[in-house]
Amino acid sequence: MSEGLPQPVLIVGTGLLGTSLGLALRRREVDVLLSDRNPEHVRTASGLGAGHPYAGQPVGLVVVAVPPDHVGPEVVRALAETDALVTDVGSVKTAPLRALEGESSIERYAGGHPMAGSERSGPLAATPTLFDGRPWAVTPHGRSSAEATAAVEELARVAGASVVRLSPEEHDEAVARTSHLPHLLSVLVAGRLADAPTDHLALSGQGVRDVTRVAGGDPALWQQIVTGNAAAVAGLLTQVRDQLDVLIDAVATGDRASLGEILERGVAGSRAIPGKHGGPSRPTVSVFVSLPDHPGELARLFADAGASEVNIEDVHIDHDPARDTGLVELVVDQTRADHLQTSLGERGWETHR
Amino acid sequence: MSEGLPQPVLIVGTGLLGTSLGLALRRREVDVLLSDRNPEHVRTASGLGAGHPYAGQPVGLVVVAVPPDHVGPEVVRALAETDALVTDVGSVKTAPLRALEGESSIERYAGGHPMAGSERSGPLAATPTLFDGRPWAVTPHGRSSAEATAAVEELARVAGASVVRLSPEEHDEAVARTSHLPHLLSVLVAGRLADAPTDHLALSGQGVRDVTRVAGGDPALWQQIVTGNAAAVAGLLTQVRDQLDVLIDAVATGDRASLGEILERGVAGSRAIPGKHGGPSRPTVSVFVSLPDHPGELARLFADAGASEVNIEDVHIDHDPARDTGLVELVVDQTRADHLQTSLGERGWETHR
Repeated sequence: MSEGLPQPVLIVGTGLLGTSLGLALRRREVDVLLSDRNPEHVRTASGLGAGHPYAGQPVGLVVVAVPPDHVGPEVVRALAETDALVTDVGSVKTAPLRALEGESSIERYAGGHPMAGSERSGPLAATPTLFDGRPWAVTPHGRSSAEATAAVEELARVAGASVVRLSPEEHDEAVARTSHLPHLLSVLVAGRLADAPTDHLALSGQGVRDVTRVAGGDPALWQQIVTGNAAAVAGLLTQVRDQLDVLIDAVATGDRASLGEILERGVAGSRAIPGKHGGPSRPTVSVFVSLPDHPGELARLFADAGASEVNIEDVHIDHDPARDTGLVELVVDQTRADHLQTSLGERGWETHR
Repeated sequence: MSEGLPQPVLIVGTGLLGTSLGLALRRREVDVLLSDRNPEHVRTASGLGAGHPYAGQPVGLVVVAVPPDHVGPEVVRALAETDALVTDVGSVKTAPLRALEGESSIERYAGGHPMAGSERSGPLAATPTLFDGRPWAVTPHGRSSAEATAAVEELARVAGASVVRLSPEEHDEAVARTSHLPHLLSVLVAGRLADAPTDHLALSGQGVRDVTRVAGGDPALWQQIVTGNAAAVAGLLTQVRDQLDVLIDAVATGDRASLGEILERGVAGSRAIPGKHGGPSRPTVSVFVSLPDHPGELARLFADAGASEVNIEDVHIDHDPARDTGLVELVVDQTRADHLQTSLGERGWETHR
């Protein structure tokens, strides 16, 4: 399945993404070469089995895996210094293209963006399974050759990902909406907590924890991502500001109809997100189970849930500070929830919806 | 421990909260009476063991557990029709007080708000464990008698909750910040997804799912909650709009310093939320584990995690659409992550951070 992939593959930048890609490709015995401006990182990545150090030999495909600010210049350099096809794994796609305008070699470049990452960084955080089943946006520009686009799609598949083909402009609009906007609004909500009195924060529940989780992400990285996608992000933020004005007016004047419209639109939007299996979103419900807060009890619960033959779509754990017990939320297909509750009840678990 | 609770306790409104409270109090053999404008709900709640139908007998404490819009009038009625102490479990606390202005009986009332709920409603969704370990805000106003306040605190403790004492104004400010603002901003983010192209939404990851989860909540209920807390909510929304203006300007002009400040403030805010055990927030990290997407594998994983004696703080499951396998994110204390990874690795699991 990796015959269509031009080899060797040179990975420029052996951080989390680059090293993980090397490990993923090596599972399929792809010939992988590694470079990084930090030679220590190359030695580490190579020692982990992600590929061999690059020594200037001819290559078939260059994958640029450097921080967002450096993607454009590194793609230009790869096109100039090799005659290989070139791609990158950066999280914005139109900004690097501007660095390529006027280059005749631009045909050999098609962008890409795997939707995978971690809050850790560096080669030691790498894993061969990082891309398994994740979407990998493949973003050819107007002058990308068919050969370059095909190579990037093959790279994504060999790494274990699912290809989503988008233009660079569509991609940047899509991630502005599904990633950058949620991140920035989460940051604004979290910002309002920063100087709140401690006894006010004691009322925090699962909702605010969920909404603000991503706000803890690395500010230096997000600074680069947001700046790199400024036009799309600013456009969406402006739409949100317009909606916020309507919302403030509705709340201040007690206009329930207008407030209701905004709330209904939020429900529709939360349902528009595709199911985790990539298929249509299936209705799920939560079954809550009380359990003692000991390591072994979770295992017993999942053993019993497994015996009920109900697939668990997601799990949340909420600890009970007063009693050192926990409440586990099992998210399951709506049609299976009754069966799960009955089955767990028969095994002595206290459940509710 | 329930000797200090004036009895019988009359619960007005046998929906999810009222019926759950009855069940929780009955665990401690409290004498509970139930009323509801829907007699069918009283029969159901009574049949579940939440208490006996109310028939006009003298009571010690009335708990008003009706939808937000009806709390004020029902508290007034309870004060007029009984000589009992009165409280409520509504999610806003200053608005109902306005209905009580000028009533001489106002001393017998002290408000309350358990931080517990479910996306389901009605007595059949009730559970005796709903309040276990949850914060229960107790919100006496300026004229609440010491006796009324003590009774509400005892009610919360007997139901299994942890008391957080706040004034009504502080409470409404606190929930505006920790619940209503996160809800409304989640709604605005989700609203931007409602008409997005399907292939754009295919790039959705865990971040946007977390940020928009609460946006799926019942619009009719949230309309009442937000309207009931309009002043505090509008104030915070206006602060967010001011921050949003700064953010839009920073993004549009590429002002990285200003953008960085906003992002840093978000990190600080996300860290300000107390730990789930109610103590200070402990640093946690995520350990990712690949596993086949079969019911039994989760049980095996938790059995192995349990054997490693590391407490799992939270869990997320991310399915792999391409291969029918899953990626499980185990959130654990930072100091225990290495041990967990080593231990799981020895048992044959593929992990990464």
